Amino acid sequence: MPYESWESQLTHTSPEGIRIRGYDLTELIGGLSYPATLFLLYTGELPTVSESRLIDALMVASIDHGPATPSALAARGSISGGGTLQAAGAAGLLTMGRHHGAAVEACMGVLQKVADGESAETVIEEITARGERVPGFGHRQHKERDPRVDRLFELAANEDFETPHIDAATAVEATLLARTGKPVPINIDGAMAAVLGDIGVPAEFSNAIFITARLGGVLRHAIEEQGMPPMRRIGPDDHTYTGPEPRPLHEEEER
Amino acid sequence: MPYESWESQLTHTSPEGIRIRGYDLTELIGGLSYPATLFLLYTGELPTVSESRLIDALMVASIDHGPATPSALAARGSISGGGTLQAAGAAGLLTMGRHHGAAVEACMGVLQKVADGESAETVIEEITARGERVPGFGHRQHKERDPRVDRLFELAANEDFETPHIDAATAVEATLLARTGKPVPINIDGAMAAVLGDIGVPAEFSNAIFITARLGGVLRHAIEEQGMPPMRRIGPDDHTYTGPEPRPLHEEEER
Amino acid sequence: MPYESWESQLTHTSPEGIRIRGYDLTELIGGLSYPATLFLLYTGELPTVSESRLIDALMVASIDHGPATPSALAARGSISGGGTLQAAGAAGLLTMGRHHGAAVEACMGVLQKVADGESAETVIEEITARGERVPGFGHRQHKERDPRVDRLFELAANEDFETPHIDAATAVEATLLARTGKPVPINIDGAMAAVLGDIGVPAEFSNAIFITARLGGVLRHAIEEQGMPPMRRIGPDDHTYTGPEPRPLHEEEER
Amino acid sequence: MPYESWESQLTHTSPEGIRIRGYDLTELIGGLSYPATLFLLYTGELPTVSESRLIDALMVASIDHGPATPSALAARGSISGGGTLQAAGAAGLLTMGRHHGAAVEACMGVLQKVADGESAETVIEEITARGERVPGFGHRQHKERDPRVDRLFELAANEDFETPHIDAATAVEATLLARTGKPVPINIDGAMAAVLGDIGVPAEFSNAIFITARLGGVLRHAIEEQGMPPMRRIGPDDHTYTGPEPRPLHEEEER
Repeated sequence: MPYESWESQLTHTSPEGIRIRGYDLTELIGGLSYPATLFLLYTGELPTVSESRLIDALMVASIDHGPATPSALAARGSISGGGTLQAAGAAGLLTMGRHHGAAVEACMGVLQKVADGESAETVIEEITARGERVPGFGHRQHKERDPRVDRLFELAANEDFETPHIDAATAVEATLLARTGKPVPINIDGAMAAVLGDIGVPAEFSNAIFITARLGGVLRHAIEEQGMPPMRRIGPDDHTYTGPEPRPLHEEEER
Repeated sequence: MPYESWESQLTHTSPEGIRIRGYDLTELIGGLSYPATLFLLYTGELPTVSESRLIDALMVASIDHGPATPSALAARGSISGGGTLQAAGAAGLLTMGRHHGAAVEACMGVLQKVADGESAETVIEEITARGERVPGFGHRQHKERDPRVDRLFELAANEDFETPHIDAATAVEATLLARTGKPVPINIDGAMAAVLGDIGVPAEFSNAIFITARLGGVLRHAIEEQGMPPMRRIGPDDHTYTGPEPRPLHEEEER
Repeated sequence: MPYESWESQLTHTSPEGIRIRGYDLTELIGGLSYPATLFLLYTGELPTVSESRLIDALMVASIDHGPATPSALAARGSISGGGTLQAAGAAGLLTMGRHHGAAVEACMGVLQKVADGESAETVIEEITARGERVPGFGHRQHKERDPRVDRLFELAANEDFETPHIDAATAVEATLLARTGKPVPINIDGAMAAVLGDIGVPAEFSNAIFITARLGGVLRHAIEEQGMPPMRRIGPDDHTYTGPEPRPLHEEEER
Repeated sequence: MPYESWESQLTHTSPEGIRIRGYDLTELIGGLSYPATLFLLYTGELPTVSESRLIDALMVASIDHGPATPSALAARGSISGGGTLQAAGAAGLLTMGRHHGAAVEACMGVLQKVADGESAETVIEEITARGERVPGFGHRQHKERDPRVDRLFELAANEDFETPHIDAATAVEATLLARTGKPVPINIDGAMAAVLGDIGVPAEFSNAIFITARLGGVLRHAIEEQGMPPMRRIGPDDHTYTGPEPRPLHEEEER
């Protein structure tokens, strides 16, 4: 039966080779970093040095947030019942929604409005009038300040581009504090939205970058769970960290 | 109700900060690449420069293989029915099994046996006697040679470590050719198994690295599908590549 | 660490027994049908005989629609790559969205408005003005008439309750035909919405009933795929039905 | 591009109608129960009255086991993070493995050996020598006796067929008790395996019946969670049942 032909602009494969957005994959392997290649696959063009550094930093910031996140717990639950690693990873993805890890795109919409000239006050008012929270702000644990956010904004400030979306995020944060009298700080989704907005990555790609980066962490929790008794009652906050003590990252130890 | 306390050695979070394997995440952000941070999270220690380069290269090699893979098609099918991006990603992961993207760990077992001194002939015989295929060898499209493999082995050869697992993979490939008279080349799963074996990454982590890297690609296909008509009949081979023409990766354009 | 206590009104289990909505599960086993038990679990109360018959009929109507649905194809893709049965089922669920199998709840909202007195014309206008399709109407294959729908409405007419939602569905269908000049018939999601509305099942439960019933079909396709070659190119419309010839259901052969 | 034609023996759809295993779906709707239709779709033939009753009873027995099962918790976690109902259902399925809900097929293999004449002692010895548990026996909560099991076996005894697999299950249970001095009772997976074995349903279909039946329960937990605060810490044993008090199932209230 004939099918309608359909078009894809991403990757061309043939017995002769594989090209991503026109570039030979064998040149990209060893020639471009994974975060930069992801940028290429998503946007269609190679990142600048600044863009490449920031995408990489965003992915590192998103890699894991410990055993008590819904995604890590779901992955552990899957392993605990006898699931495969892939099943555990999928179960983890399926906990990601507007409350966990998938608020980046929605937050970009909010920041864009402020960057385009609406006042933070007006934009917040619209959202709260619908009984919703402002996406990208507030965190269960980091109630005052999310340490990942300051670091990302500091890195962005070191690069050579305008920061209207970071400025918008800061304005929204200040307005939220003024309205409620208590901090509702920018969270990792919000920081990702601000930085991606400033480097021009379209909003529709933003959740995907977080989800990919976080899957790396989720699968590691699944593998740790493989060494634990099946069907155990997993108290989400009853874990004790027994890994290495705090240690500094010396430049000379790195890549 | 009291729960049993359980231990995790991966990531410690508190209102004060986030530490991955003892390192402050704010130091890792901008201080270590995503692939190197993944290596740290998985193995517990920072990679050497060589290890970091190779993990990065393996992830780039795994990022995508076009629209006709089971994982990209499943993700498109999910979007086509009205699924979310996360659902599409999960559907993609769920197509990964021993036939697609999750043969790395099994292949590492095979290569380890050969690296430990068993003959490739004996190891292959054991597998085929069970009516199974040798994991990590053979590809639907790259019947003669998978271009990703040669590039990865070339990069590994440029670094300063022993290559018993790459040698084992080459021996298995030669033996398969001798036995059947036709090439059953090392595929991307096999190359990943060989390189990870040589840099000492435990087999149990190997599928996770492929799965994470490939999710980036799968989600991009899902996003492309979001622009297409819902409920279309997706002929898996009826796509035409309409992206950029072949183009060289000039060093100066990169990061 | 103490957790907040949370409440559940569904099922109580203890070493002594299992009670669903207060009823001893050992009395339900053999004492109530699965569809009626599902009704009990969802709504909190036993169905009447009429309600029980109709829930059962809706589940039968939803069980399968052949190999070309997105959900059956995704399940086959999962098996084809080496996934487990559970993974295949999950992949199938993840294709269900507003275009496939999860439009029941949205359709109930539409029918409720008409049943409450708005004209079908007004309600349709609102939806199409947003550039959307009316949920629960139209089918890729059953362009004139979905045979499942007539049968379900006939069964409902034989029972002793009012049918304002079925009437609303019929009105919407007639209005769509009048507006466009071509039939946009009630589909299975729409019929389920109409019947559930008339028996008073809340809209929030409606998608779940379809999804549960359809999973039975999806998993059967997955099992059939287990006997096929892995990694085959699955042309969605290239299947031939090779099962039993048409045959009548004689009353005497049934339960 | 041409695809290989492939065969399916399950369901034929056309603009004219839908036939499941040759039967017109419009005759099945209202003419056959959902469990009986599932039997038909799976095995290819209509069930007898006895088979139909027992499949129905097995599905009722499997529908739910309260909020603390891995599948219900995973579904709640998905909703808690912002997932859709379908995502929650899929996350639930992905916790099902050999430790939870997917041991029916493996147990059927064990029971078949005993039914075929091997001693329970020998069969158990083989399994425990591999360091594994006997699938289908033992339950976290029902340590002495699973009440669902006795009821299912009682129902089976009322029907008119031989019970070699139920007898095998009873023999394995007695042998486990004799070996260890403490009860390792038949669980719901084991009971399903025994009953399905006796009514001649092939082992490869057995997990699917449990999974389908349980999805109904899992989705109900997901819907209950929709009314709770997002991102709450879900202590798996901190729930209190606040539903209806114990009440009898009077025959007159039923269908």
